[in-house]
Amino acid sequence: MSVGAITLAPDGSRCRYYEWCMTRWQPNARGRLEQAALALYAERGFDNTTVADIAARAGLTERTFFRHFADKREVLFWGAGSSQEFLVRTVADASDAMAPIDAIAAALEAAGALLQERRELARQRQTIIVANPELRERELIKLASLSTALADTLRQRGVKDPAASLTAEAGIAVFKVAFERWINETNQQDLSGLIRESFGELKAVLAGQ
Amino acid sequence: MSVGAITLAPDGSRCRYYEWCMTRWQPNARGRLEQAALALYAERGFDNTTVADIAARAGLTERTFFRHFADKREVLFWGAGSSQEFLVRTVADASDAMAPIDAIAAALEAAGALLQERRELARQRQTIIVANPELRERELIKLASLSTALADTLRQRGVKDPAASLTAEAGIAVFKVAFERWINETNQQDLSGLIRESFGELKAVLAGQ
Repeated sequence: MSVGAITLAPDGSRCRYYEWCMTRWQPNARGRLEQAALALYAERGFDNTTVADIAARAGLTERTFFRHFADKREVLFWGAGSSQEFLVRTVADASDAMAPIDAIAAALEAAGALLQERRELARQRQTIIVANPELRERELIKLASLSTALADTLRQRGVKDPAASLTAEAGIAVFKVAFERWINETNQQDLSGLIRESFGELKAVLAGQ
Repeated sequence: MSVGAITLAPDGSRCRYYEWCMTRWQPNARGRLEQAALALYAERGFDNTTVADIAARAGLTERTFFRHFADKREVLFWGAGSSQEFLVRTVADASDAMAPIDAIAAALEAAGALLQERRELARQRQTIIVANPELRERELIKLASLSTALADTLRQRGVKDPAASLTAEAGIAVFKVAFERWINETNQQDLSGLIRESFGELKAVLAGQ
């Protein structure tokens, strides 16, 4: 799951201060390090790749690596915080007239649209994570935190429990399934559309269809 | 989450070969070790407890400990495999006339009934797991495997994707929320009832209520 990959500027606009996003055609240090790391993790495995390897592949120094990432794992998870922030803010800002499940669905669809242009990186990242139990556990923890944060946000909107927790969990469930379809399918449907479709499917499933 | 705590005999009957279950009022070695471990994890933390401590508290030898558990973590997770087996078999055996979501709900309710008598142990276990990120990650991995296994079982019943994955994920979501209510609430509703109620709530939530 690559909620991790959305980058937001502090004011909530998309990517303004993040170089990889401003210059996709001319990757900056962060983007080059990320691409080098993903390539090496795929070739040698995450455990067999060092920060020195990544820096060398990117044509940069280890010092530059550590200016951008705390360690080699953070290359895979650096965006989780800002993604969570984006989703929480989008749910908090949704119109009061919106049903909780629709506020969650709209936020996830918006996140899906941001992720769309990172499909290839997200796909590479997912392959690495699935192959490594520790990384998979970390990914699951991030999704569990996201679910908790979204449930809290719904409570602040006046949603009672267990509806708040169930709505958040349903959102994460839909996102997981839609994300996997997006990553794996050859038909290249866009992620937002798959999220919308999966919410519809979940409704049908729960109605016993 | 303590799906981990259901014990089944190889033939699927409940607990026949497991001593803790046969003699609840006179705990056997396994049960004594489990209780001692949970008490020590709560008092000193999981990381600060050794197998020697657990054996001593239970009045048994380390050798006896290792006859029952591979390591101190397994005391918390030994039942996950048999719980998964129970759920998978129950879903596989459900009447063809049952909607997939109802087959999942019935299996989880049956598991909830088995867990009911272990409420106090489940509560202690959960407190320990929540306090320790590594244990929490392990718990999440177990639930993710369970979701995958249930989705596979639904596919074998002819359920197409994404409905199979979504139904399994919805089941896990409901179980998580119901389990947390069961563990935390003072009103002591039974777990099966909470699972049934939470499925109803999820339907209402998805209908935009």
